[in-house]
Amino acid sequence: MGKHKVIFQPSGRRGEIEEGKTVLDASRELGVEIESLCGGNRACGKCRIKLEEGTYEKYGITSSSQHLSAFSDEEGKFITPEEKGEGYRLSCVAEITGDVLIFIPEESRAEKQVIRKAATDRRIELNPAIRLYYVELIPPTFQDPLGDFERLKNALLEKVHLPSLNIAYDTLLNLSRALRKGKWKVTVAVWMDREIIDVKPGRVEEAYGVAVDVGTTTVAAYLCNLQTGKLVSTHAMMNPQVIFGEDVMSRITFVMAHPEDGLERMHRSIIDGLNQLLQEMTRENNLQPEDILELVVVGNTAMHHLFLNIHPEYIGVSPFTPAIHHSIDVKARDLGINVHPAANVHVLPVEAGFVGADNVGVLIAEEPDRQDDMVLIIDVGTNGELVMGNRNLLVSSSCATGPALEGAHIKFGMRAAPGAIERIQVNPETLDVNFKVIGQDLWNLEQKVATAKGICGSGIIDGMAELYRAGIIDRSGRFNRDVPSPRFRLSDGKPEFVIAWKEETSIGREITITQQDVRSVQLAKGALYTGAKLMMQRLGIERLDRVILAGAFGSYIDPEKAMVLGMFPDCDLKKVYAVGNAAGDGARIALLNRDKRKEADEIARKVEYIELTIETDFQMAFMEAMQIPHMTDPFPHLKGIVPDRILNP
Amino acid sequence: MGKHKVIFQPSGRRGEIEEGKTVLDASRELGVEIESLCGGNRACGKCRIKLEEGTYEKYGITSSSQHLSAFSDEEGKFITPEEKGEGYRLSCVAEITGDVLIFIPEESRAEKQVIRKAATDRRIELNPAIRLYYVELIPPTFQDPLGDFERLKNALLEKVHLPSLNIAYDTLLNLSRALRKGKWKVTVAVWMDREIIDVKPGRVEEAYGVAVDVGTTTVAAYLCNLQTGKLVSTHAMMNPQVIFGEDVMSRITFVMAHPEDGLERMHRSIIDGLNQLLQEMTRENNLQPEDILELVVVGNTAMHHLFLNIHPEYIGVSPFTPAIHHSIDVKARDLGINVHPAANVHVLPVEAGFVGADNVGVLIAEEPDRQDDMVLIIDVGTNGELVMGNRNLLVSSSCATGPALEGAHIKFGMRAAPGAIERIQVNPETLDVNFKVIGQDLWNLEQKVATAKGICGSGIIDGMAELYRAGIIDRSGRFNRDVPSPRFRLSDGKPEFVIAWKEETSIGREITITQQDVRSVQLAKGALYTGAKLMMQRLGIERLDRVILAGAFGSYIDPEKAMVLGMFPDCDLKKVYAVGNAAGDGARIALLNRDKRKEADEIARKVEYIELTIETDFQMAFMEAMQIPHMTDPFPHLKGIVPDRILNP
Repeated sequence: MGKHKVIFQPSGRRGEIEEGKTVLDASRELGVEIESLCGGNRACGKCRIKLEEGTYEKYGITSSSQHLSAFSDEEGKFITPEEKGEGYRLSCVAEITGDVLIFIPEESRAEKQVIRKAATDRRIELNPAIRLYYVELIPPTFQDPLGDFERLKNALLEKVHLPSLNIAYDTLLNLSRALRKGKWKVTVAVWMDREIIDVKPGRVEEAYGVAVDVGTTTVAAYLCNLQTGKLVSTHAMMNPQVIFGEDVMSRITFVMAHPEDGLERMHRSIIDGLNQLLQEMTRENNLQPEDILELVVVGNTAMHHLFLNIHPEYIGVSPFTPAIHHSIDVKARDLGINVHPAANVHVLPVEAGFVGADNVGVLIAEEPDRQDDMVLIIDVGTNGELVMGNRNLLVSSSCATGPALEGAHIKFGMRAAPGAIERIQVNPETLDVNFKVIGQDLWNLEQKVATAKGICGSGIIDGMAELYRAGIIDRSGRFNRDVPSPRFRLSDGKPEFVIAWKEETSIGREITITQQDVRSVQLAKGALYTGAKLMMQRLGIERLDRVILAGAFGSYIDPEKAMVLGMFPDCDLKKVYAVGNAAGDGARIALLNRDKRKEADEIARKVEYIELTIETDFQMAFMEAMQIPHMTDPFPHLKGIVPDRILNP
Repeated sequence: MGKHKVIFQPSGRRGEIEEGKTVLDASRELGVEIESLCGGNRACGKCRIKLEEGTYEKYGITSSSQHLSAFSDEEGKFITPEEKGEGYRLSCVAEITGDVLIFIPEESRAEKQVIRKAATDRRIELNPAIRLYYVELIPPTFQDPLGDFERLKNALLEKVHLPSLNIAYDTLLNLSRALRKGKWKVTVAVWMDREIIDVKPGRVEEAYGVAVDVGTTTVAAYLCNLQTGKLVSTHAMMNPQVIFGEDVMSRITFVMAHPEDGLERMHRSIIDGLNQLLQEMTRENNLQPEDILELVVVGNTAMHHLFLNIHPEYIGVSPFTPAIHHSIDVKARDLGINVHPAANVHVLPVEAGFVGADNVGVLIAEEPDRQDDMVLIIDVGTNGELVMGNRNLLVSSSCATGPALEGAHIKFGMRAAPGAIERIQVNPETLDVNFKVIGQDLWNLEQKVATAKGICGSGIIDGMAELYRAGIIDRSGRFNRDVPSPRFRLSDGKPEFVIAWKEETSIGREITITQQDVRSVQLAKGALYTGAKLMMQRLGIERLDRVILAGAFGSYIDPEKAMVLGMFPDCDLKKVYAVGNAAGDGARIALLNRDKRKEADEIARKVEYIELTIETDFQMAFMEAMQIPHMTDPFPHLKGIVPDRILNP
């Protein structure tokens, strides 16, 4: 046993690491960031590192492949034999058994993810559940020995009519001191006109709340000033539950496979993560977690259940019934969330087993129930949620789009971080490629600087649409093997197309789009398209008036390219637009306007959920929807919608 | 260090005890009960033991005074030099340093206290806050995938009109499983028509609740069947807080003297004790703590605050304002009480800083506010609480009676346990004494069996009244030094009167009433009398129509003797009666009838509290009230009230 010297390059960080720890663990201990989409779960293959063999007198070590655990089959899935020969390993698998010098290749260097769950700039009418009141009390005397709570209540009654006022138990415990410390002048925070949750000495002008969108992959938190409605700051993190499974079903499966502690671990991980997020968020804004007086939370039904510590077993099996639809208020403390001890957590209602509170958030943000237009709202995350309808009727549905649209399960896929290719153009004549990288203003051909590290979700959609438009892939998604370009090639007998040449990247390798990548995206977009089509069938409508792309992903894809690929049924392109993280916006709206909470419960009850998988023609429709719409023999839904340059290149 | 053999006699229990532990700790480890009124706090001197020196081959030990820590000054306060010579020690002080054989004298053997907080047999209208409903649900299908909570709510709505039904968070966590386990047939426990707190598979007919009276000295718990109203069992324990101080003020002082953890320790000790009590109570009745669905708690204001974990600092200083008057419902879990996880604890309202929820319990049990008679209710415990008035007006007050009336601070005082002298008669001619001992049917002179161990509170009152009647003490409480009886004697120069001769006791010593004992009782009764008199003055009344003695103590004293001593102002003796532990009864009434909770809040608001100590003539009145009413020159308030045989013996 014992410890060994571990040195990371290019940062040069080093330290003593206990034998048996993985390289990934070591990197975390030494503060070196290695990209790990799956959170160290041996699933994504993104955490590749390179062992530098040799004797390094400068450091006093000899680094050797003997000083890491033996190369495993699991690593073989992501690392080719040549790469293995060069010293490549997966950092989540390889264990330290001696002194090593590790090089982290450019593509494995984690950089702060571009928060794709940024809040949209919306006008929100301010009517928060938390109100502050400043009151001055007359101190008690022998002649007037009324108790502290009753004295405060009377003073509040005089100022504002709150007839059935209670006090949170935790707040009662500190009431007497606060009153005396403030010399009987205090600021009281009242929740929903009925519960005193905070009493602070003197005059206090600020109150804070946080809206949280618990996504399957990303958790976003919006810190808001409840007095002004101002968005103070936005923070995001990966949902720590990803280590237990990447999508909703795998998380439910994990919980069921670990009856003794699976739920507890899953619940604890999101709560612990959220606590950390809230701590950072408040610290950066010179606040304390105790300054947070309320939270509003949205998430899909599985996230909702796991967040609340409710066993998700029955939302995972037919007929997929949730434990509760209605919104619920729970004390943050009962959930283990470290904010103000009396703070409430308002969790928005869920619609159905697979259409959750996040979708309700989208609905109260977008208000399709108040419009005449027949609208389709697509909220794409790891799970795809669809709502269709107008003021007369709303139906919802969900489909498993998988993580492909977020850049995972794509050979060079990566998160939307600096270095990710987010836009791709393929010249239909020369088949030459131009691309744009996150973090740089100019396109590749304009600047000629090799900086690409991978492709993010929106880049993949862009690329695929372009490959199709240029005839490089056909309707079925198959590569055309006669492509007259050096960019087309076979790798291990499988076709791929080079997007960035080695010298255009910072990872020392070409970045390609592979046949497998195309298939992954086809599955995702096929699921979305099928869902929408079946919903139209159910509603008996032929056309959509509007398509709203919600969710982080929707904000970054080019609506035109998405329609080229057939991600959703036909619609006037001018009426297709992205609204950002509408689920998170909905949470923020509910945080700042209590009337919207009532509306959320009403709309959640009103939306009719359609379980797509039991629709009789689902499978056939899905097979069809996997195809990319036909171009030369114009597919009806593109007529008059897709610009000429696409239909007749 | 190491361990030493410790043997207790007469039980013969033995074991290995770690060096440095006190004899009292050792007795607890070995399951031997030693009386300890103050809970091992070196304050009561009741835990005397006798070290038996010598070599005991049978046990293979040599017992020696060298095997206990050196005799300390603290022990010297309770043990005379002769007793010291005989091997007497205080078990809470003496530490084990070697093998010892310990004899526990009869008077130190703890026996189960007679529960003086037994419930009175009252007719209580049954209208509990907890109601059980059996419902059968239609299972969900794809066509009807409504969530579990909403499904249950709808079924309940059909059965009974409960429009604003919520579910406790903890209950929600288990809802889905309970429904499926019961095959969609369940019994639901609803609290106050608004909160589902339990869902059990199948049909359940029984629900339980516990009423708790947290006394300063004794905690009593009443386990009730909420469906039938039946009192299932009564348990009592010493309030574990006594180790921090015997009365209310010393507990408050302790908390203030230990700002870092005093409150927490005080709070934890009552909660831990209660948890143990509830565990024993449920086990003995073949129940689980989880079967307890609600608790109702009463206690004086300090006990109320400490129970709720509210700092009592401001009820200890002028103007003695409590943190809250109103009743409060707290989740048992938030208090750390181990019953059903969603159970609520209803704490009755308090009237003032020194008139608490226990007094409110007395009021809803006795209902003076519904009567025309001018009534005085005296609730005597460690603290004396007084209420006076009728349907027009009610005033309350409190006075520190101290623990004397409970047998503490009395030389031979003991709890009301078997062996305690509870009745005393002194023949005014011969000055001979007859007495009755708890646990025996006959009086001493009738059976001639030596069994007395000490004198309990009611015995002291009896004895004092008799000493006065016989002229052994005078109006001022001073002993008449010319008493022609061998029973009168001086001990260390201080007068005392022998109640039981050595051969009439089981402790090998005479049992006496000392001058100091008389003074202690005078202080207590003087406080009560003064309080009542000042309240009459305030109400502008000359006479009381009725005097009710509430509290355990009140049930055991002879009203006639109490009036001879002048414990309360004059009243027709036929209209003086005891009602037992009315505070506990009030808690039980509130547990079984929710309407009474509303009434409690109303009456608590209505009662006007009088702070006696600030009344200008309090001190003078108190000095006067310390006297025993004059007999030969009939005192006005006894005229026509006290029977002739007392006035003219």
